[in-house]
Amino acid sequence: MSELRQDAVTGRWVIIAAERSKRPGQIGNNRAPAPSPPCPFCPGNEALTPPEIFAQRPEHTRADAPGWQIRVVPNTYPALEDSGTLTMNQHGIYRSMNGLGAHEVIIESPEHIVDMGMLSADQLANVLRVYRARMRALRRDPRWRYLLLYKNHGERAGASLEHVHSQLIALPTLPKETSGELDGVERHFESTGRCIYCETIEREVERGERLVLNSERFAALCPFAPRFAYESWILPKNHGAVFEESQDKDIVAFARILHELIARLNRALDQPPFNYVIHSIPPQSESNHYHWHMKILPRLAHAAGFEWGSGCHMNSVAPEDAARLLRNPVL
Amino acid sequence: MSELRQDAVTGRWVIIAAERSKRPGQIGNNRAPAPSPPCPFCPGNEALTPPEIFAQRPEHTRADAPGWQIRVVPNTYPALEDSGTLTMNQHGIYRSMNGLGAHEVIIESPEHIVDMGMLSADQLANVLRVYRARMRALRRDPRWRYLLLYKNHGERAGASLEHVHSQLIALPTLPKETSGELDGVERHFESTGRCIYCETIEREVERGERLVLNSERFAALCPFAPRFAYESWILPKNHGAVFEESQDKDIVAFARILHELIARLNRALDQPPFNYVIHSIPPQSESNHYHWHMKILPRLAHAAGFEWGSGCHMNSVAPEDAARLLRNPVL
Repeated sequence: MSELRQDAVTGRWVIIAAERSKRPGQIGNNRAPAPSPPCPFCPGNEALTPPEIFAQRPEHTRADAPGWQIRVVPNTYPALEDSGTLTMNQHGIYRSMNGLGAHEVIIESPEHIVDMGMLSADQLANVLRVYRARMRALRRDPRWRYLLLYKNHGERAGASLEHVHSQLIALPTLPKETSGELDGVERHFESTGRCIYCETIEREVERGERLVLNSERFAALCPFAPRFAYESWILPKNHGAVFEESQDKDIVAFARILHELIARLNRALDQPPFNYVIHSIPPQSESNHYHWHMKILPRLAHAAGFEWGSGCHMNSVAPEDAARLLRNPVL
Repeated sequence: MSELRQDAVTGRWVIIAAERSKRPGQIGNNRAPAPSPPCPFCPGNEALTPPEIFAQRPEHTRADAPGWQIRVVPNTYPALEDSGTLTMNQHGIYRSMNGLGAHEVIIESPEHIVDMGMLSADQLANVLRVYRARMRALRRDPRWRYLLLYKNHGERAGASLEHVHSQLIALPTLPKETSGELDGVERHFESTGRCIYCETIEREVERGERLVLNSERFAALCPFAPRFAYESWILPKNHGAVFEESQDKDIVAFARILHELIARLNRALDQPPFNYVIHSIPPQSESNHYHWHMKILPRLAHAAGFEWGSGCHMNSVAPEDAARLLRNPVL
């Protein structure tokens, strides 16, 4: 089983998961990876993954057999596992706990699609419904302090399999990035009485210089201080802390703007590798001042010594230029 | 000129530096980079860089002409520049300042060496002396709140030129990673009266399970909670907050352990791409509780959605296993 360890100086948690070094295509060194085995995410190969947790499939089909549209399975090489009870250890200056949590994979299409842009807005809406269902299920478990839904798209963005998929992790501890975000939201609310994300949307829709797409229910924009070139955020216009509480008409509108944004990133940047993450308020947080959103992070440059050493990022594309290109992508 | 912008929620600063998109080999998209131009770091090509700031060269040679052993120049594509005065801007929720700072490149050998392991321990000591000289010079400038010396080694670690070099940045603001580190150091000192790094060295040297190299003046170890597989730290055994105050015998001993550690990483991991950073106490900090050190970060896996979304890292190699391999690297 894996282990969560806390850096004694910074308080940052890391997951030490030796199992994950066995994933396909892992470069333990610089040698070429082995040739690809059959895709474990394709129909007919269901036995190559652990038994499914959830699937969108016709009633007459069997679990772990073809017929599904979207399939959710535990990660074969889990960073965290739901077995045993949480145990905190303190040895001198070092704190750790066993790797209790959840690590699911959402296989987003039965077809071996490798370009996210090939999913229609309707298919994407179904994918988002599955994210919602799985996050709802995990949110009910009082052991989890944080849920992160994320996609690694392309080798350079950390994907080890190309068949379209996302991942969902439940953590027994609140990570620093999240507590920093929550603190910032509360600080702004205390000093102004307002949600900082609502204020951001208002300002960006009004000025337009960093706005990419604007619909009745959602805005897509390049943020003022992006870590990554062409970083884009999708925010719901109606204030809400919990993505999983989205109604179906919100899901449909979210899918539509996400579909269009991915199409524009693909056109403007020639199918870039990217990550996206859904930031929803952590379970057990009672604040209503958070505002859920999705961050899309194209991975065109490598974070380097400066970023890892300082936590400060260099970005060679101003968000105003990025937004201009994404509003009018080259064909 | 570039701009420093602060994320309104997390308080994280980013540098928006559009000039840097013109660097060689930049992938603004996924297309193949153009063929390499002549190396601007090789002797004879001095005119391809801005005029030198500093050089180790015989007295009879001219600045910006061949004859040098180590040469320091401003970065041709600077993230920050020393021109004008610092101006802070606040527009509604957004805070920014002009990109005032320094961004130097240390060219570490006149030969076109691309493998850091080819530098002898004596050459490395000279390189460290130049780091020390430049950091001393920048530390005297009261405008700088932070100095970071870092190396990007290999394309995957963010290097855009292969000829051995490092970089030195002076920032007008303290980055979050650093303030978090300083806070942790002070918190530990307040509760125990001890330096947390001194305690780490004592414990790791005594137990040995994460120790890689041990000399009279330095220890090299894999930390308890590493973000990266095979992450290694070099720490001086004598407590000191400021790297630049190192005496020459410390520099020689530091060079020797760094040389050996790089040789072992190269042997064990087949010339991995890596970053290293020197963490020295920020200028203007008066605390004596900090303990300078170097972090070496092999870049075998890509940070992905989980890391960028949560700030928590997954590492598939336990530091005990990494240290065992680095103590006895495969030949």
